Amino acid sequence: MSFVQTVAWVDEQLRLIDQTQLPDKEVFLDLSTTDELIAAIRRLSVRGAPAIGVAGAFGVALAARQANGDETEFRKNAESVRASRPTAVNLAWAVDRTLAFALNGHADDWERRAVEEAQRILDEDLDLSRRMAEHGLTVLPDPATVLTHCNTGGLATAGGGTALGVVLEAGRRGRSVSVFVDETRPLLQGARLNTWELERVGIPYQLQCDGAAASTLASGRVDVVLVGADRIAANGDAANKIGTFAVALAARHANVPFYVVAPRSTFDLSLASGTDIPIEQRPAEEVRSFRSAAAAPANARVWNPAFDVTPAEFITGWISERGVERPPFPT
Amino acid sequence: MSFVQTVAWVDEQLRLIDQTQLPDKEVFLDLSTTDELIAAIRRLSVRGAPAIGVAGAFGVALAARQANGDETEFRKNAESVRASRPTAVNLAWAVDRTLAFALNGHADDWERRAVEEAQRILDEDLDLSRRMAEHGLTVLPDPATVLTHCNTGGLATAGGGTALGVVLEAGRRGRSVSVFVDETRPLLQGARLNTWELERVGIPYQLQCDGAAASTLASGRVDVVLVGADRIAANGDAANKIGTFAVALAARHANVPFYVVAPRSTFDLSLASGTDIPIEQRPAEEVRSFRSAAAAPANARVWNPAFDVTPAEFITGWISERGVERPPFPT
Repeated sequence: MSFVQTVAWVDEQLRLIDQTQLPDKEVFLDLSTTDELIAAIRRLSVRGAPAIGVAGAFGVALAARQANGDETEFRKNAESVRASRPTAVNLAWAVDRTLAFALNGHADDWERRAVEEAQRILDEDLDLSRRMAEHGLTVLPDPATVLTHCNTGGLATAGGGTALGVVLEAGRRGRSVSVFVDETRPLLQGARLNTWELERVGIPYQLQCDGAAASTLASGRVDVVLVGADRIAANGDAANKIGTFAVALAARHANVPFYVVAPRSTFDLSLASGTDIPIEQRPAEEVRSFRSAAAAPANARVWNPAFDVTPAEFITGWISERGVERPPFPT
Repeated sequence: MSFVQTVAWVDEQLRLIDQTQLPDKEVFLDLSTTDELIAAIRRLSVRGAPAIGVAGAFGVALAARQANGDETEFRKNAESVRASRPTAVNLAWAVDRTLAFALNGHADDWERRAVEEAQRILDEDLDLSRRMAEHGLTVLPDPATVLTHCNTGGLATAGGGTALGVVLEAGRRGRSVSVFVDETRPLLQGARLNTWELERVGIPYQLQCDGAAASTLASGRVDVVLVGADRIAANGDAANKIGTFAVALAARHANVPFYVVAPRSTFDLSLASGTDIPIEQRPAEEVRSFRSAAAAPANARVWNPAFDVTPAEFITGWISERGVERPPFPT
C-alpha cells in the first residue's frame, strides 16, 4: 500500500490534500500565493508538524516568486509563512533552511532553488518516516494493541508518518496490530483522519472519545501508547495535541509504556524544558461547534489551548530517526 | 434564582424538559406511557442519576395505570422502567421504593400512591441537594475556581444539583466562583447543559475540551474538582461519566483536591468495589457523529463506554447529604 501524497509541487503550484474535508471528500488544493498557504495552515487544511514543515518549505518558493528579486520582500514573505503557527518547530526549521538555501543563489534562481530544497525536505521526511517506523517496530509486540492520540500518519507528514507511521508499517509487514483511536477534540483528527488512514490499509481500530482512554488503558487492553509531538525540549518534555498529557498520566497509572515518535527536527534543544514551549490558543469556535453542529451557546466563553506538554518523567522513550533515545539528547 | 424544574407531574402526565434539545430550545415532553418514558431515558432526554431516579418513580405511576389492577402486569411494567439504564443505581432504588409503597395499598390506589411517593422522592431530592450544597461549600475556598465534568446541576437532579449544585449555591450566596467546564463527549452535557445552567444564573465559566482538563489542572488555575457519580461502591470507587477518571488522575498529579458529590441513594454498599459496577456500552452513533455533523466514517468501529470508575485512592472526599464522608461508609 503506497503512502498518502499529503504535500506535492505540481505545475508550479503547491498541492495539498484538504484535511478539513476528510473523510467525507478527497479534495486537493492548488495554492499559488503565500497568503493562500497561510490561510490553509491556519484552518488546518494541512496539519501535523512534519507536514506543515514541508508545506512551509514549498511556501518559500511562493514567497520567492512574489518577491520579484527583492530580498527584503522575499524574507518578509517567508517570515509570514514561518509565523503562521507558533508551536510546531518544524515549520520554522524548514522555512529557515529553504530560505537560506535559496538565498545562496542568484535572485533569478531563488524560486527554483527553494523548490529544490523543499523537495529535498519532502524526500528526507519520507525517509525519516521509514527510519522512525523501523525503530518503532522494536517496541511493538506482535500481536499489538496500540492507543494513539491525534493523527500522526501519512497526513501529518510528507506521507509516511510518525507514531501512526509505526502502526502502518507494522501492517505493511503483515504483523497483527490494532488501534484504539482517540477522536481528538476539538478538530477530531483521530475520528476523521486516523480512521481514514487505517481503513485505507485495512488495519482494525476502535474509535473512542478522548475521555475513554484512561479506562481503556486501565482495563489492560493496550500494549503500548504511541503519540507524535509538535516540539520536544532538551529535557524530553513534549508538546503535542491537547489531551496527550491525560493519556500519559493514564498510561503511567496502568503501567503501559508511552512513546513519543518524532523526527529530530521536532527536537528543540534550545529550550531547557517544556515550560518554554509557546502554546497556541485556537479560536473559541472550534470548541463551540463541530462543522455545522452547535455544541454550546453561541457566546460560550472558551478555553482552547491547542497543545499540552507531557513532562519527560511520563515518557518511556523518544523514537526518532536515530533510534529510541533518552534525554539528555546528543546534538 | 429558582431551581430548574427538571421533572414534574402535571395533569396526570410526567413532564420532562427535553435535555437533548438544550441549549438551543427549551422543549417540554409530556409522557403518558412507560414506553415513552423508557425511550426518553434511553435517548437521554432525562439524564443524571438523581433525575432519572425521580423520573423512574413517576414512571411507576404510569406502570400502575397501564396495569389496570393486574399486579403481575404492574410489576412487569415497573421492571421495564427499572432496567432502562443499567449503571445508575438511583433508578432501581427509586422504582423499587415507589413500587413497594404503591403495592402497600389497594389496587385502585396504586397510581395515586405511586404519584404520592414519587413526589416525596422529588421533594427529598431537592432537600438532599440543599444539604449536599451546604456540606460542599465547606470545601470551597472563596474565591474559588472549580473544574467539573458532565452535568450535575439542576438538570441532573430534581432541580438542585450535586457537584454543580454546590457551585450554584455558592453563586446564590454571592460568593466569587468560576468554573472550568469539560464539554463531556460524546453527548456534550457540559457544553450544552452546564453552560445553560451557569449562564442562567450568571456564574462565569470557560468551556474546554475534555482533553484540556489535565493541562488546566497542571497550570494551577483550579482550586478544587467537583464531580457527581452514578454509583459508588462500598470501598469508595465511583462510577461517573466517561472521562472522569482522567480528570482524577490529573487532579492527583496537580495536587488539586477531587471530591465526588452524590446523595446516599447513589452509594451501593452491596458492591465491594468498582469492578462490580456494570458499565453500559452506548450506541456507536454517539461517537461517530457530533449532534447532526458526521465526525467519522459512517461505518467506523466504536468503543463507547458511558462511564468509567475512579478508584477511591484518587478521591479526596465523598460529599453526601450527611457530610464529607470517607469509606468505610456507615449504612
